[in-house]
Amino acid sequence: MTGVLYGLGLGPGDPDLVTLKAAAVLADVSVIVYVTPVTGGEPAPSFARAIAAKHLKGDETEIAIPIVMQDDPEPGQRAYDTAAAEIAIHLDAGRDVAVLCEGDPLLYGSFMYVLDRLKGSHTVVTVPGVSSLAAAAAAANLPLVSRHQSLALIPATLPEGEIRTRLLTADAAAVFKVGRNMPKVKKLLGELGLESGACYVERASLPDGKVMTLTDAPDSPPYFSMVLMTRTETNT
Amino acid sequence: MTGVLYGLGLGPGDPDLVTLKAAAVLADVSVIVYVTPVTGGEPAPSFARAIAAKHLKGDETEIAIPIVMQDDPEPGQRAYDTAAAEIAIHLDAGRDVAVLCEGDPLLYGSFMYVLDRLKGSHTVVTVPGVSSLAAAAAAANLPLVSRHQSLALIPATLPEGEIRTRLLTADAAAVFKVGRNMPKVKKLLGELGLESGACYVERASLPDGKVMTLTDAPDSPPYFSMVLMTRTETNT
Repeated sequence: MTGVLYGLGLGPGDPDLVTLKAAAVLADVSVIVYVTPVTGGEPAPSFARAIAAKHLKGDETEIAIPIVMQDDPEPGQRAYDTAAAEIAIHLDAGRDVAVLCEGDPLLYGSFMYVLDRLKGSHTVVTVPGVSSLAAAAAAANLPLVSRHQSLALIPATLPEGEIRTRLLTADAAAVFKVGRNMPKVKKLLGELGLESGACYVERASLPDGKVMTLTDAPDSPPYFSMVLMTRTETNT
Repeated sequence: MTGVLYGLGLGPGDPDLVTLKAAAVLADVSVIVYVTPVTGGEPAPSFARAIAAKHLKGDETEIAIPIVMQDDPEPGQRAYDTAAAEIAIHLDAGRDVAVLCEGDPLLYGSFMYVLDRLKGSHTVVTVPGVSSLAAAAAAANLPLVSRHQSLALIPATLPEGEIRTRLLTADAAAVFKVGRNMPKVKKLLGELGLESGACYVERASLPDGKVMTLTDAPDSPPYFSMVLMTRTETNT
């Protein structure tokens, strides 16, 4: 019997927003895997590992995947190769392995890099999680879309023209990975007359989470912050 | 002390995809509220109520909001007026009230109609849930978007031209509410050369859930089915 590879969605940060299913997998799994982002030479703690912490037994084998934060994806891909080989050894020995993912595993998650390498040879079960998008909307008590409306999820890292095209054809939008791209996002929403229906959300679901108007939002927010835009009667 | 109004996301259908937070609210709340869709004169059971069932104590006051499924939204709005007035009485008497929502409360959910009526006068806490989008991607083990890619959520009920515009500007898309609009969706994805990267998902996370290629998908699927599209190397 080979083990099962779980892509485990752990939600946006509040450990109580973990699903019962994910908590059950954490209570039972032999091996956990998570990314540790490396900036300035030092690996930072894994956010997904922190969300999972209170649900773990404490006797798991832990595999950290160090990923250097940079534009060149090549070294990262080699780190996933190494991790996938190590994971495969555990699976082949009959041990279940959970890849810990903040938010949902398949929405802007790094689980896809492990999945791609192992789905052909092993049993993979993805456990969906609460996305940071849902958590941001909840923090703002802001209905995003209803009935016949469309929603665009847009990384703020895209070129200005690409963001503009997507904003123009959407009834509502969530702009992700804002960070140092905030001035570009503010400028675009202003030019399109969409400022009044926009709000800024930082660290949704966490005790220090913040919701504010776009005007009040910092120009250099954390990378994992989000701008939500809905069309209001005055900006449609 | 007035009560708290919860917008409670219960996830896509598997009761184990309820969050610990939602389960805790269900174990504690005095009043639950849910929509019962009315077709052909008879209210159908609430899907959200079914997901919540195993987490309930059994002594809650229950408020059903009968919503007739039709294009004219007016009678539905009157039903929400009536429900909101009834909910306000419970809140004012100090009882917590949970509006049960399948998926996430603020993504295509009817919670917004209750929220709009009561947020000015009462304390509202939205508890985000796992969306049917995340569940569909998980069922298909299909990574939707990564890095600098954008995702469009598109109701299949939109006119063909509107769907086309949104598909053209997205790296990946989820087409919702497919139902009898399936022939239109298949035709559009075919014309745009996006068939090979598309798959059909029905009742994701439930025991009778299905994942199949777009070619194999039925022409008249259930309303709550979804088509996921990602651009592959051959259709980019």
